[in-house]
Amino acid sequence: MSELTIIGGGVIGLAAAWRAAVHGHRVSLYDPEPGRGASWVAGGMLAPVTEAWPGEEDVLRLGEASLRRWPGFAAELAAEGVDPGLAAHGTLVVALDSADAGQLDILAGFLHSLGREVESLTGRAARRVEPGIGSVRSGLLVPGDLAVDNRKLLLALEHACRRRGVTFHSTRIDTLEEVRADAVMLAAGAWTGRLHPLLADAVRPLKGEILRLRPRRGCLPPPGNTVRALVEGRPIYLVPREDGELVLGATQYEAGFDESVAARGVRELLEGAERVFPAIAEYELVETAAGLRAGSLDALPFVGELGDGVFAATGHHRNGLLMAPVTADAVVAWLAGEAPPDEVAAASPARLRERERV
Amino acid sequence: MSELTIIGGGVIGLAAAWRAAVHGHRVSLYDPEPGRGASWVAGGMLAPVTEAWPGEEDVLRLGEASLRRWPGFAAELAAEGVDPGLAAHGTLVVALDSADAGQLDILAGFLHSLGREVESLTGRAARRVEPGIGSVRSGLLVPGDLAVDNRKLLLALEHACRRRGVTFHSTRIDTLEEVRADAVMLAAGAWTGRLHPLLADAVRPLKGEILRLRPRRGCLPPPGNTVRALVEGRPIYLVPREDGELVLGATQYEAGFDESVAARGVRELLEGAERVFPAIAEYELVETAAGLRAGSLDALPFVGELGDGVFAATGHHRNGLLMAPVTADAVVAWLAGEAPPDEVAAASPARLRERERV
Repeated sequence: MSELTIIGGGVIGLAAAWRAAVHGHRVSLYDPEPGRGASWVAGGMLAPVTEAWPGEEDVLRLGEASLRRWPGFAAELAAEGVDPGLAAHGTLVVALDSADAGQLDILAGFLHSLGREVESLTGRAARRVEPGIGSVRSGLLVPGDLAVDNRKLLLALEHACRRRGVTFHSTRIDTLEEVRADAVMLAAGAWTGRLHPLLADAVRPLKGEILRLRPRRGCLPPPGNTVRALVEGRPIYLVPREDGELVLGATQYEAGFDESVAARGVRELLEGAERVFPAIAEYELVETAAGLRAGSLDALPFVGELGDGVFAATGHHRNGLLMAPVTADAVVAWLAGEAPPDEVAAASPARLRERERV
Repeated sequence: MSELTIIGGGVIGLAAAWRAAVHGHRVSLYDPEPGRGASWVAGGMLAPVTEAWPGEEDVLRLGEASLRRWPGFAAELAAEGVDPGLAAHGTLVVALDSADAGQLDILAGFLHSLGREVESLTGRAARRVEPGIGSVRSGLLVPGDLAVDNRKLLLALEHACRRRGVTFHSTRIDTLEEVRADAVMLAAGAWTGRLHPLLADAVRPLKGEILRLRPRRGCLPPPGNTVRALVEGRPIYLVPREDGELVLGATQYEAGFDESVAARGVRELLEGAERVFPAIAEYELVETAAGLRAGSLDALPFVGELGDGVFAATGHHRNGLLMAPVTADAVVAWLAGEAPPDEVAAASPARLRERERV
């Protein structure tokens, strides 16, 4: 049983802290505001298939490996006392115009070639699935996706960590010299690049804005599925919550470490959402928020040893919530001196060293 | 010296309470949340001229009568201890297309006919006045307007009221039977219709959303003037604040007593503002808020006696901040048994009785 220090208390750091503590390790977690950051500002889609794209098979495999773990992960977490609000609902991807429809055909063909269960729909059939959507060219229905209420999840994880004896420190850690333990895990999201030279140019902040809305009296209720679309090249998703809210995301652009909500981002999200689901215009806008996702150099995160007892778990981009369970398993395996889940190999930070050699 | 009970602690109720207390009356004010309501959600323009329209000469006269009082009112208020943040800056009204330009010509002609000092500008000249505005057809510059920071004003008024011995009650008053005094003033804004049968169908809520924004680093600073425009028939204004913020308003529609911020309202304001002042797209969106203005049957408020020692001061629509000083003077005159300012005569609720007789 070893001593593990985790820097960063987003979904990745908290999930790993909890799992490591369950496995008997002594865990300290450093974060001035655990449970906040990019994990707090998220849609909560656990939908690797609709995020997939030809050439990114490794991302899909890693995402699916984590999706398989989610039901067990959520059940065990709920048993610690707080339910993270995992819900099963499909994802409907819609194409608004012929260019979008072409993109959707590519995605469908790719998923069929991998043997994934997806259903291509005409525009009319898509509207039968979700009568509230606007006029669309075509759709792709992916059953069996999951979604989690990210804020409930963060609460549940923090509760489980405390219950399992994880020590929380609100100190902000700027250099690795400030902490010493048998094992150190870097999970500071977009800020992780500042903590290790190998990650310095490999992790960067990608800003994302999301909005939370609620139907007012007389409004059409939110869709039953997560609905995704590309509007003028910008991805839009609408994720219904069990409590009746609808989460609308997400912008994505480089703006350094600026976490403020930009007027343009809000306007683009609302415009896009009204095209996809017109009734949202009459919804109450409950919250606007921005977070910084950790972008990596490619579409994969960095999950693996950096050397000297330091383990990276960052660069999860838009997939932090999805990939938390498999990332936590990789950390636990590392602490036990065992091999990580197969699918994690592609995410090894060793690929950064190979890049250096080239 | 009489005892005055005021129902409603928005800008009208607070202004009257302060002035009445200064004149030696004993004042009680009832409001569960004084200093909030529609007055809290406002741009703070004190600009009667650019709100004017042929046929609404009485509104312009009343607004100008109050605008003349504003500098003295603000100075006396500041002397009570808290500065309300009155600022002198002009208003630039811009026309985006030829239809708007036609409307602007009508407004300019009307104001010239009344001898008001306004300057008609070409689009190019308007952009010389405010280089940050987008492409416009023409403009109208009104010098000598004022603006006030509505939230500082509300703080200043509440402070002055307390200093002058006004008693605040947080009870919500639903019927006039609950209060008794020599004199009762009804200043509950959109809710006033519930308090007196004569006002029941005469005052209605008009919802308005406003946004508060702040330039981020590297952004063009806010305009120096208040900038107004009509975008696709919807009025937009941008009011710069002394603290660097920019207030963007305002939607206006009937939605009953619903005070929630609607997605459509926010989207329309942001779209419109980007047309008028493109740099706002990169501003931080600091706050979204909605308030219910008190609409009257015509463009004038109801300021005057209803009978039985009850005085109405409501229905100020978008002009509550502007018209607070003249309204307060009318209340003080009534308490003293004197004639109100001339311009208030047109706002008398007696016109409701005339309507009943027709």
